[in-house]
Amino acid sequence: MSDPLAELQDRAGEIHSLRAITRLLEWDQLTLMPRAAAHHRADHLALLSRLEHRLLVDPELERLLDAAERAAEALEPESDAAALVRLVRREHTKAVRVPIALREEMVAGAAEAKVIWQEARARSDFDFFLPQLERTFDLRRRYVACFDSTDDAYDVVLDDFEPDLTTCDVTRLFDEVKSELVPLIAELRDRDDGAALSGPFPVEAQMRLSAEIVAVLGYRPGTWRLDPTAHPFSSGAGIDDIRITTHYDERTLGSFFATAHEFGHGLYEHQIPTRFAHLPIGAGWRSGLHESQSRLWENLVCRSLPFWRFFYPRLQEHFPDRFRRLELERFYAAINAVRPSLIRIHADEVTYPMHVVLRFELERSLLDGDAEVRDLPQLWADKMQAYLGVEVPDDARGVLQDIHWAWGLIGYFPTYLLGSVMAVQIWEQAAAEIGDLEEQVERGAFETLREWLGESIHAHGRKLTPQEILERATGSRISTRPYLDYLAAKYRTAVAA
Amino acid sequence: MSDPLAELQDRAGEIHSLRAITRLLEWDQLTLMPRAAAHHRADHLALLSRLEHRLLVDPELERLLDAAERAAEALEPESDAAALVRLVRREHTKAVRVPIALREEMVAGAAEAKVIWQEARARSDFDFFLPQLERTFDLRRRYVACFDSTDDAYDVVLDDFEPDLTTCDVTRLFDEVKSELVPLIAELRDRDDGAALSGPFPVEAQMRLSAEIVAVLGYRPGTWRLDPTAHPFSSGAGIDDIRITTHYDERTLGSFFATAHEFGHGLYEHQIPTRFAHLPIGAGWRSGLHESQSRLWENLVCRSLPFWRFFYPRLQEHFPDRFRRLELERFYAAINAVRPSLIRIHADEVTYPMHVVLRFELERSLLDGDAEVRDLPQLWADKMQAYLGVEVPDDARGVLQDIHWAWGLIGYFPTYLLGSVMAVQIWEQAAAEIGDLEEQVERGAFETLREWLGESIHAHGRKLTPQEILERATGSRISTRPYLDYLAAKYRTAVAA
Repeated sequence: MSDPLAELQDRAGEIHSLRAITRLLEWDQLTLMPRAAAHHRADHLALLSRLEHRLLVDPELERLLDAAERAAEALEPESDAAALVRLVRREHTKAVRVPIALREEMVAGAAEAKVIWQEARARSDFDFFLPQLERTFDLRRRYVACFDSTDDAYDVVLDDFEPDLTTCDVTRLFDEVKSELVPLIAELRDRDDGAALSGPFPVEAQMRLSAEIVAVLGYRPGTWRLDPTAHPFSSGAGIDDIRITTHYDERTLGSFFATAHEFGHGLYEHQIPTRFAHLPIGAGWRSGLHESQSRLWENLVCRSLPFWRFFYPRLQEHFPDRFRRLELERFYAAINAVRPSLIRIHADEVTYPMHVVLRFELERSLLDGDAEVRDLPQLWADKMQAYLGVEVPDDARGVLQDIHWAWGLIGYFPTYLLGSVMAVQIWEQAAAEIGDLEEQVERGAFETLREWLGESIHAHGRKLTPQEILERATGSRISTRPYLDYLAAKYRTAVAA
Repeated sequence: MSDPLAELQDRAGEIHSLRAITRLLEWDQLTLMPRAAAHHRADHLALLSRLEHRLLVDPELERLLDAAERAAEALEPESDAAALVRLVRREHTKAVRVPIALREEMVAGAAEAKVIWQEARARSDFDFFLPQLERTFDLRRRYVACFDSTDDAYDVVLDDFEPDLTTCDVTRLFDEVKSELVPLIAELRDRDDGAALSGPFPVEAQMRLSAEIVAVLGYRPGTWRLDPTAHPFSSGAGIDDIRITTHYDERTLGSFFATAHEFGHGLYEHQIPTRFAHLPIGAGWRSGLHESQSRLWENLVCRSLPFWRFFYPRLQEHFPDRFRRLELERFYAAINAVRPSLIRIHADEVTYPMHVVLRFELERSLLDGDAEVRDLPQLWADKMQAYLGVEVPDDARGVLQDIHWAWGLIGYFPTYLLGSVMAVQIWEQAAAEIGDLEEQVERGAFETLREWLGESIHAHGRKLTPQEILERATGSRISTRPYLDYLAAKYRTAVAA
């Protein structure tokens, strides 16, 4: 072994590239793949996953890691090379714990469950999905059993997404959110009827609007793509191949905020330093930190009054008949109306968190065995009533609305709320350091903000953990105080006034 | 080793899938990838190529092949399993001959050469490309030296595309073509000035026309895609994921014939039997046989009078101002005008072969060392004069026009003409067996022809060699007689009359 650090880079680079290729295939599948090709795509994605796993569990890699760790002792702990050794060790250690047979069963199970979930949702029939969902949670419990026992079974699945938060941390944070938001929602709900934002908004005009907003925020043609899909997402095959999507629905302006949201995800990946962009450390954390970036652009920028002072005249040009005679303040109140509703992805900034708390509490109980999968619809309905005062009329608009569990994605939901919480901490730090951030937003000047995020968050890639990055950027780890104060101030004072 | 044939299928399936993934990445690169992503894509394609090679040269695969060959002795030689063993043995045997270092040098050299070729062509400066092209041929000579010596160095590169033809065969076939076509071209040239086909033809209308022609020929939405690109090509990631492209140029109707051409390639891949479509035998031969399928639809179908009796009224609807008052016979003469010209891909059916003969003769001499790369522009000009009576004004319209050599693709050019030759043999056999093929074409009924091609050609995948498939379908191996008679009859009698 001539240079274990160089050799580790080569092998880690292959793992990283396989992930990029996987994302490209997933993007293609959701944007423009011919429908009939689904079975090919399932085979190809399974192969890529298998090849990545083979590279990760290769005994040669373990020997190389041992040698690289010895070599890294002479390096700065925060050097790229040392950070790479740490990250690959973490991934190798986790990968070797899970027997290949279980892994393949999970991959195959997810592919099957997705199809059955689609039909169950179309029929709004939870019982049809039940056996599959029981199997999904069973597989996840077997996955959890592969790891050393922790205080909470949920710690294991959470660790895949939040490497430095425990279930106990998340429970405490979410309880803080719940105790303040439930009364706040009751206080603010339904003050605006949303009539100012009812459609139709022709899709062609929305497409032009989405193209304009990403151009304004900082999308670089020749490096990014923006395409329409059934559900918005962000993907891409490298820092110079960023692909975001959005969903157009004539009845709402949701595409605008979805586009801004995905822009935030895309910018995180785009601003990873070129120096290590070909390595596993050269990516954003698939965690609450990623969501903090999308929520920052969607909510802190694009649902703020300074932003609309700048952008409202442009919106009026796109939809003159709808907005010419509507005052900016009325429009601002409408896009920030607090209206408890059934569907998570359509929820406003204040009610959205409760949708996440609900899912976290349910999936944790199911994994622990404190609740039974078959009781989910009732448990769901009870919590929707308690947190949002909403009746769940059917399974399609209740427990079947999200694809995550069908995908076997358990432990991921918390990231959505953790991201909203961290977005406010990051935003306030950016405002303090930049000084005139609000004035810049009001001028439509986003370069300083992009640069600040690049240097403070994106530049670390996965060299530090998410909480380390947050602490380095803002001086503290995750805290709900700024977030809850922001919500109360914005919605009690500004919007409701 | 429980079942070597089953295990071989698994491994061969992975190789096949990596190729499909590679094609998808190449398709994406040429259709819609952001420009800046080129460096990511080069890395990802190099990795896929490396992974495929690793699987192919794996000593485990060799042991498995030995066992599978013993097991296959009990099988019918034409069974899927026996054919798979033969094909994988062939690919393994060839792959292990080439040292990894040389292989990587060839891959990297091609990536570099492509960029330099683009600039050289833009500047029309052969000298700028010369060192790179010398290196390309040098690498190819080193590649040839990895194999047992044959009568002709060119046999080795030809074998990559035409596994059962020798350089001697190709020389004889091409000499036959040359001796009859050079005088035929002199006789027929420039009888039609092409004025009937001069543009502009608005691109929007051409796009609708391309969509219509593939629908008429038998493109299935939900399984195929048709997209615009700078150069037409056919690709895809499986029998249910066929992606063809075409190029729209307002000045000509070339997109129409390019679309029909790529449809033929796509249909070949689409009609591979599902039974073995996940294995390396489940693909069309990347050889003259593939080109026979594209030429058959482009020329035998879509440049024939029966076809235009059916389709001309539709064309007239797309371009009423251009064609309403032009008689069918005038239009038919115009699309079959014989006009020697500089650019291969724009050449008509009669002059096209000479462009291929020229390239074959030159690349063969270069590989043998009978000619020097630096003399290419002069050699090119001499042959263009001798075969087509055309002056070459500059390198861009001469030796720099094709990307093949920049890609390291030496030995591939002959397939273009071999395909045209075989297309006529196949067409005549189809006509004899179907009986009323011409009447069907005149009615726009292509299902019987598609089925006949499916059963006679496509159903074999790569279980038999290309010439075996041709012989099975038509009763004879490749022969220029039907082709030359067809050209003389069509162009001397029908068109020129």
